[in-house]
Amino acid sequence: MHEPSTPEQLCERLRWRYATKQFDPARPIPAAVWNALEDALVLSPSSFGLQPWKFVIVDDPALRQQLRTVSWNQAQITEASKLVVFLGQRTMTEADIDRFLQRTCEVRGALITSLDGYRRMLVNFVQTGWAAQDLAGWNARQVYLALGQFMAAAAMVGVDTCPMEGIDTIAYDRLLGHEGGAFKTLCACTAGYRFATDKHGLAAKVRYQKDQLIERR
Amino acid sequence: MHEPSTPEQLCERLRWRYATKQFDPARPIPAAVWNALEDALVLSPSSFGLQPWKFVIVDDPALRQQLRTVSWNQAQITEASKLVVFLGQRTMTEADIDRFLQRTCEVRGALITSLDGYRRMLVNFVQTGWAAQDLAGWNARQVYLALGQFMAAAAMVGVDTCPMEGIDTIAYDRLLGHEGGAFKTLCACTAGYRFATDKHGLAAKVRYQKDQLIERR
Repeated sequence: MHEPSTPEQLCERLRWRYATKQFDPARPIPAAVWNALEDALVLSPSSFGLQPWKFVIVDDPALRQQLRTVSWNQAQITEASKLVVFLGQRTMTEADIDRFLQRTCEVRGALITSLDGYRRMLVNFVQTGWAAQDLAGWNARQVYLALGQFMAAAAMVGVDTCPMEGIDTIAYDRLLGHEGGAFKTLCACTAGYRFATDKHGLAAKVRYQKDQLIERR
Repeated sequence: MHEPSTPEQLCERLRWRYATKQFDPARPIPAAVWNALEDALVLSPSSFGLQPWKFVIVDDPALRQQLRTVSWNQAQITEASKLVVFLGQRTMTEADIDRFLQRTCEVRGALITSLDGYRRMLVNFVQTGWAAQDLAGWNARQVYLALGQFMAAAAMVGVDTCPMEGIDTIAYDRLLGHEGGAFKTLCACTAGYRFATDKHGLAAKVRYQKDQLIERR
């Protein structure tokens, strides 16, 4: 078992992070590092552990080029070592809940009937709870939580990222074969290594003062 | 400058994390560690860097007790070392954008007029872009991104967390003095140290198979 990071190491890594605009196209992410970042995606927390998402990793250069044309031609799409598209489930049905409970039983060796009460609570929540009015929106929040974990994880292992909402999500769905499917594109994130000369990386980080963002009670 | 974490260390920390239900009330988070986690909140990425959020840290035991009664009486609210309430901005106005650009100039020493074009783009986006139909929802996604960074950061420094959506957000707004204000409560997250006997921490982590969550193109 490794030691946790120190507070100093954590802060240094998170201060080092910025939305990288210029990636070095000649510098791939080593396989061991990328595998860990895929694991970070898989390990993301979500409400009730429902994992209402799909992560599409695009390596094909021709497809990357097509995606770039529907991403305001942003160079990161083709120049970063990796491109992850984040999709969220359009809804949350009883079938989704059953699939999740089935998986729970598989992993934990429990009987599905032992989860009857939990199933009723989950179904009731998604049908009548606060999230019921906008299940797609609820799922989208979870996807952004995964994006947050992914970006923090990347920073910890020294990988640069650029989160991107400025993409044509409808065109992405089409190009990725998800048109009309159960998942819809929400955003993308590129990953790789910055050019030391990227001016965005040299500019001071803009944050409000801590006492404007944090209230104490 | 510290070294980045290794891929093994990252994965170990993220696997170690789980939604902690039983915190050791006798074990506080050391000040240096907590300061780093506050910095992780402040350093969270957000769309355009707009930071549409407020983080309320509740230390007062009486207020914690009141919040617990509107959180399905979940013990984490009073027993964890720390409680952070995540609030999202209800909207995104020209005044918010101006405040952000003002801060940008302050930090980077630029003239506000040099950002005129950027201001037009931002105002146009929040008034007519895809997020315009649901600015509160767009802000909420950013807040969950901050939650994702916070939880990953906590895991890296060996701090347990429990994200909580099962809270009466209206009552939280009232108890925190945010009723009718610019920000509304979205969720909470407790932080501290697990009891080794918490059965939730001993159960196997339930995730779908990697090839069900990740598609490759």
